[in-house]
Amino acid sequence: MSDDSLLGAARAAALDAADPLTAFRDRFVIDDPDLIYLDGNSLGRLPRETVDRLAGVVGDEWGRRLVRGWGEGWFEAATRIGGKIAGLIGAAEDEVIMADATSVNLFKLATAALRARPGRRVILTDDLNFPSDLYVLQGVARLAGPGYTVRVVPSTDGIHGPAEALATAIDADTALVALSHTVFKSGYNYDMAGLTAAAHRAGTLVLWDLSHSAGALPVDLNGAAADLAVGCTYKYLNGGPGAPAFLYVRRDLQTALDNPISGWIGQRDPFDFALDYTPAPGIRRFLTGTPPILSLLAAEPGVDLLLEAGMVRLRERSVRLSTYLLELFDAYLAPLGFRLNSPRDPAWRGSHVSFGHGDGLRINLALIRDMRVLPDFRRPDNIRLGIAPLYNTFTDLHTAVERLRSVVIDRLYERHDPTALQVT
Amino acid sequence: MSDDSLLGAARAAALDAADPLTAFRDRFVIDDPDLIYLDGNSLGRLPRETVDRLAGVVGDEWGRRLVRGWGEGWFEAATRIGGKIAGLIGAAEDEVIMADATSVNLFKLATAALRARPGRRVILTDDLNFPSDLYVLQGVARLAGPGYTVRVVPSTDGIHGPAEALATAIDADTALVALSHTVFKSGYNYDMAGLTAAAHRAGTLVLWDLSHSAGALPVDLNGAAADLAVGCTYKYLNGGPGAPAFLYVRRDLQTALDNPISGWIGQRDPFDFALDYTPAPGIRRFLTGTPPILSLLAAEPGVDLLLEAGMVRLRERSVRLSTYLLELFDAYLAPLGFRLNSPRDPAWRGSHVSFGHGDGLRINLALIRDMRVLPDFRRPDNIRLGIAPLYNTFTDLHTAVERLRSVVIDRLYERHDPTALQVT
Repeated sequence: MSDDSLLGAARAAALDAADPLTAFRDRFVIDDPDLIYLDGNSLGRLPRETVDRLAGVVGDEWGRRLVRGWGEGWFEAATRIGGKIAGLIGAAEDEVIMADATSVNLFKLATAALRARPGRRVILTDDLNFPSDLYVLQGVARLAGPGYTVRVVPSTDGIHGPAEALATAIDADTALVALSHTVFKSGYNYDMAGLTAAAHRAGTLVLWDLSHSAGALPVDLNGAAADLAVGCTYKYLNGGPGAPAFLYVRRDLQTALDNPISGWIGQRDPFDFALDYTPAPGIRRFLTGTPPILSLLAAEPGVDLLLEAGMVRLRERSVRLSTYLLELFDAYLAPLGFRLNSPRDPAWRGSHVSFGHGDGLRINLALIRDMRVLPDFRRPDNIRLGIAPLYNTFTDLHTAVERLRSVVIDRLYERHDPTALQVT
Repeated sequence: MSDDSLLGAARAAALDAADPLTAFRDRFVIDDPDLIYLDGNSLGRLPRETVDRLAGVVGDEWGRRLVRGWGEGWFEAATRIGGKIAGLIGAAEDEVIMADATSVNLFKLATAALRARPGRRVILTDDLNFPSDLYVLQGVARLAGPGYTVRVVPSTDGIHGPAEALATAIDADTALVALSHTVFKSGYNYDMAGLTAAAHRAGTLVLWDLSHSAGALPVDLNGAAADLAVGCTYKYLNGGPGAPAFLYVRRDLQTALDNPISGWIGQRDPFDFALDYTPAPGIRRFLTGTPPILSLLAAEPGVDLLLEAGMVRLRERSVRLSTYLLELFDAYLAPLGFRLNSPRDPAWRGSHVSFGHGDGLRINLALIRDMRVLPDFRRPDNIRLGIAPLYNTFTDLHTAVERLRSVVIDRLYERHDPTALQVT
């Protein structure tokens, strides 16, 4: 990896200099340029704008305007920011709203879907889905009553989603197909339109978890005739730790579905204080309780940055970055025993890449503790590198691979405990 | 209301000077002393400490530590702060946790309660309950299936909770009694121990919404053998707009109850990524998804202030303040046509007081827009004055009554639109 080679640092710097989107990196707080952050797919970086915005929300809005803040923007924030997120995921403004946590929204929409398909008792998913999604779906089925089940279709290789097997498994007893659009470990990306069409032919609804695809690649919910979606805003949307989630319901489905957690913010006239619940006519009916305003408003600048950069351009940059990363992988990491645990073709991949290694956990610990690289680890052996196209650079990837090599070649990982628990 | 009278401004100032808790007011951001804020029972003021704390959470934790924050305190924040709230409401540390919104927690616990009492199909409540609670309970009953109902026992006067009628109505078909401990309009306060005992004699569970009592008066959940409770942190706990809620489950009930919204943060080993849900053994099983960290951590300084002041001392101060307010009411407001829409005896009242008036909505608008007083309004005629004992003073109350008199005597309210919509 000498500096003058085709894969040297000079080329990475040249690629960065030539890329029109590199300047977006300066819109984030990066006070330690030597730290290589490749975990933006778990928690995105802090936009500079968010610092001032939040100080204003606390000091000026809460501190000075006090309860009047509800009439001066807070009450509409969930629909307003939701409408902006719609622009990232191919939906109409009035089809997306921010609310609760992803898992709570998944519960709402999956429960609503079962009730909209009475008599059908199967929820179909795959074993690559994020475990929390499986836990929520299991809870939904348990609550729906005897006979309701979550059927988990296995992936054959742990990398690619079992798209064909899922399409075949959809039948007249399938109420709902619920999948991660981009798989949290491998980054495999489902063909949203194709699977949705297969489900619709059987009268089945589809619910997509966009947590690893929103902000990572252009999502086209309307183009795919998608029914339902949920997603988080703290990964590629850079909304902050645990920032409120979003949910999407296709416009013509909104009045047909009931929010099982019916609360006052989803009521038609929240300030009427009527004793009986009447849902709001549109997307607002899927709200429940008062939203956490500080976390909600902190999520807006990250969304604005993505809209400004444009998802099509960001996707092109993401593919350039990951293609470059795989060149480095082939040249330097594969020979050291690393395996590619992600699809090679970027058309089938989101914006993160997983490398497997028998000593993956210890290598990951060495990267974090000794080498100032922050990827994350997903059992059994995945070192997951999240490429956030708004701020990660070719130089980031080059430096990360250089340090990864050093960990293995110099056997730095051997000092770390193979039974250590990783927390993120 | 001349200054030298028994009820004059000089006496209010003297009462403030003599009160040992008055100094706590300086712990809050109050940049406009002329604004009389009596809506701390809807949104509590901003503690000074919260400003710095949140700047640190954003700049240092999210900005610099990035995803490592989860291993450095974020992951435990919901249980840690929940344990502190337990100290305000008479519960053990491991019986309270912060999570989601109040309405979502109410859904979780009410649904869990129905499942723990199979065959019983009635949820009992009253018509003084906060409408969102009624909406959630209606949704819980609808989801539970045919035959499940919410039975609403009416108050005879719209002020006092129908405690006796409720106790009489509890029978072998009653799964759950769900009530606001302190009623949102009148401030009426239920005898928690008495009603819980009546319910337990019938094998019925009780769920208390503490949104208007936590931080307003000492609550003794364990002393009352209470089963379940939920509450918000943005009123008397001064946690910030829409700050995450809390929930309480008595220790011996925790393993007997299932969280219907089963998610990864409530899983026994969240980082195992097992495909099947196994609930955590204790209170943590009632968590679902990733919490909104900015809003969650912002809620801690307000709780710390209440613990420092002590709920018993704060209650004594709250009673002194409300007793003084009623003296002013009797002398100056009753003659102007105001009615007391709260219990007169402080033993049956939380820390807010409602005054009724035929022109209540317009008077309230005049207070806000012309007189720099912020109470809030609850239909049909309630001007609700929230007394937050940590920062409201005798002088606040004196000034508010003086301005309220002026609005009525000078007929300032007549310029306001009687059909106006109030947002908070």
